[in-house]
Amino acid sequence: MKEFDLIGRYFHSGGHQRKDVIVGIGDDCAVTQIPENQQLAVTTDTLIGGVHFLMDAPAKSVAYKAVAVNLSDLAAMGAEPAWISLSLSLPEVESAWLEDFVSGLYELTRFYSVQLIGGDTVRGPLAMTITAQGFIPPGTQLRRDQAKPGDWVYVTGSLGDAGAGLDILKGEIDASGEAREFLIKRHLYPTPRVAAGTSLRRIANACIDVSDGLLADLSHILTTSKCGATIHVDRLPLSRGMKETVTDEQAIAYALSAGDDYELIFTVSEEQKGNLETSLSSTNVKATCIGQLTGNTGQIDLKHNDQRYHLPEQFGFEHQF
Amino acid sequence: MKEFDLIGRYFHSGGHQRKDVIVGIGDDCAVTQIPENQQLAVTTDTLIGGVHFLMDAPAKSVAYKAVAVNLSDLAAMGAEPAWISLSLSLPEVESAWLEDFVSGLYELTRFYSVQLIGGDTVRGPLAMTITAQGFIPPGTQLRRDQAKPGDWVYVTGSLGDAGAGLDILKGEIDASGEAREFLIKRHLYPTPRVAAGTSLRRIANACIDVSDGLLADLSHILTTSKCGATIHVDRLPLSRGMKETVTDEQAIAYALSAGDDYELIFTVSEEQKGNLETSLSSTNVKATCIGQLTGNTGQIDLKHNDQRYHLPEQFGFEHQF
Repeated sequence: MKEFDLIGRYFHSGGHQRKDVIVGIGDDCAVTQIPENQQLAVTTDTLIGGVHFLMDAPAKSVAYKAVAVNLSDLAAMGAEPAWISLSLSLPEVESAWLEDFVSGLYELTRFYSVQLIGGDTVRGPLAMTITAQGFIPPGTQLRRDQAKPGDWVYVTGSLGDAGAGLDILKGEIDASGEAREFLIKRHLYPTPRVAAGTSLRRIANACIDVSDGLLADLSHILTTSKCGATIHVDRLPLSRGMKETVTDEQAIAYALSAGDDYELIFTVSEEQKGNLETSLSSTNVKATCIGQLTGNTGQIDLKHNDQRYHLPEQFGFEHQF
Repeated sequence: MKEFDLIGRYFHSGGHQRKDVIVGIGDDCAVTQIPENQQLAVTTDTLIGGVHFLMDAPAKSVAYKAVAVNLSDLAAMGAEPAWISLSLSLPEVESAWLEDFVSGLYELTRFYSVQLIGGDTVRGPLAMTITAQGFIPPGTQLRRDQAKPGDWVYVTGSLGDAGAGLDILKGEIDASGEAREFLIKRHLYPTPRVAAGTSLRRIANACIDVSDGLLADLSHILTTSKCGATIHVDRLPLSRGMKETVTDEQAIAYALSAGDDYELIFTVSEEQKGNLETSLSSTNVKATCIGQLTGNTGQIDLKHNDQRYHLPEQFGFEHQF
């Protein structure tokens, strides 16, 4: 099958259409129109089969995750998603896999009113790169480097679920019933916190999404903002599925160290706490205060019931390249 | 080595900086500012080691080519390049390779005043995806589907050189001296026709770049524009290096069928021919008229001294996926 037929057959049909796309898929470039008084937020993320998702993951989940991790980056910047480009590398053309992939892709893009505007399809190892673009009013972007000592540290949703879901699929932990389903779904179909992200503009001092794990991602805020943090592990938001599946200590380890939750970590000054509650209430997303920033650059102090807490050593948080 | 150290060490130093980049590398997204009264052109291309470049190609050439093929897509649309995002997948971290890669990347981006605004680095098979963005005044984009019967068909530069250069490297043809060097350079370091592309706005009816070969890429214009073409093979622009290296018949076959030249094919109405010469003269790029469009949708008639010409069968032009 020829490369161009492949792209044509699977991607040309359906998908959300936006009025600001002047030229879509099928020419050398897409051409788009940015709204007046908006800047452009751009992010790129790659998923490699066997590295970022299990080789036997459902195609729909792979597409869903590839889009979600990029929309999550836009959310962490406070941007409103608009367009994505997809580069898809496939070892061979499998119709059923491609149909499921496109269905997952278009399901998520329709939900977020995002249009696929172009890309590339190549023969190679199973992998995909998505570039996502969105809009943001000048000066309102949520950076990593603007956190201040004294800021309160929040996270959306619950933490650690995606990591526990992955370990269930790998047979490393046991779970059953609804808890099992819930945790696996959190791994396969993460929810980018798009509405929460835009609602945090002008309220949060700093924001990042949880891709590598709470400690690792919080560290990026701390390093670039020259702050430290005290985190109360007894305040970490844990799902019911997580609590039913593992011990308290394991749950805390997942919440601190596991990646791929795509929740938002953000910091808010004392003065903005009231505005935060008002703003988030319209998004139906729960945010939990888990600690406070300090002046000890780069240092994270873990507390449990106000006592010092040690994360067992086997739960290291830094991904090795 | 940790992923973030890797990105930091090799990419943070140097590279062209633009005033319209509000947030560059190092946050969840880049944030950029589009000039007033411009639309955005976006393109994505992936190169896979062993598929799109030889595994032992110099790292500098790999970077150069990855950027050039994307700038070439912008050129083919008539857009002025501004920013690129890079996703780089590497089996391992080799300092010397990475330094050469970054050097090639930054050499080309500096030349075209393009800024690297972000990306991703992952462990995986050697591959890279670049998304390039540029500006274009509304309504001036050079599409594939606006060619008209009667238009004259032009190409920039010379054709077939990159394919001959690749065959020299693979040991399939012999060449020596300057011709050998020239042809290999055309394969390793293609020149995106950026200035020619923007100068063709409002002059060319249709435009595409030569990535798959003249016949294959011209076919995209013919199919989408519902035209045919008569191409005079004796008018194909051939380099001196090509003529010194292969027979006339082989040279024509390379010019018609070989890919990766990244020249522009474009069509111009009789009325615009005068403007074309004026406009191109400022860019120092030669364009050659090689034929004319007809009403026979999708059909390409090859002529040699006004006699019908048959491309020997072994020089098929369609890439198989």
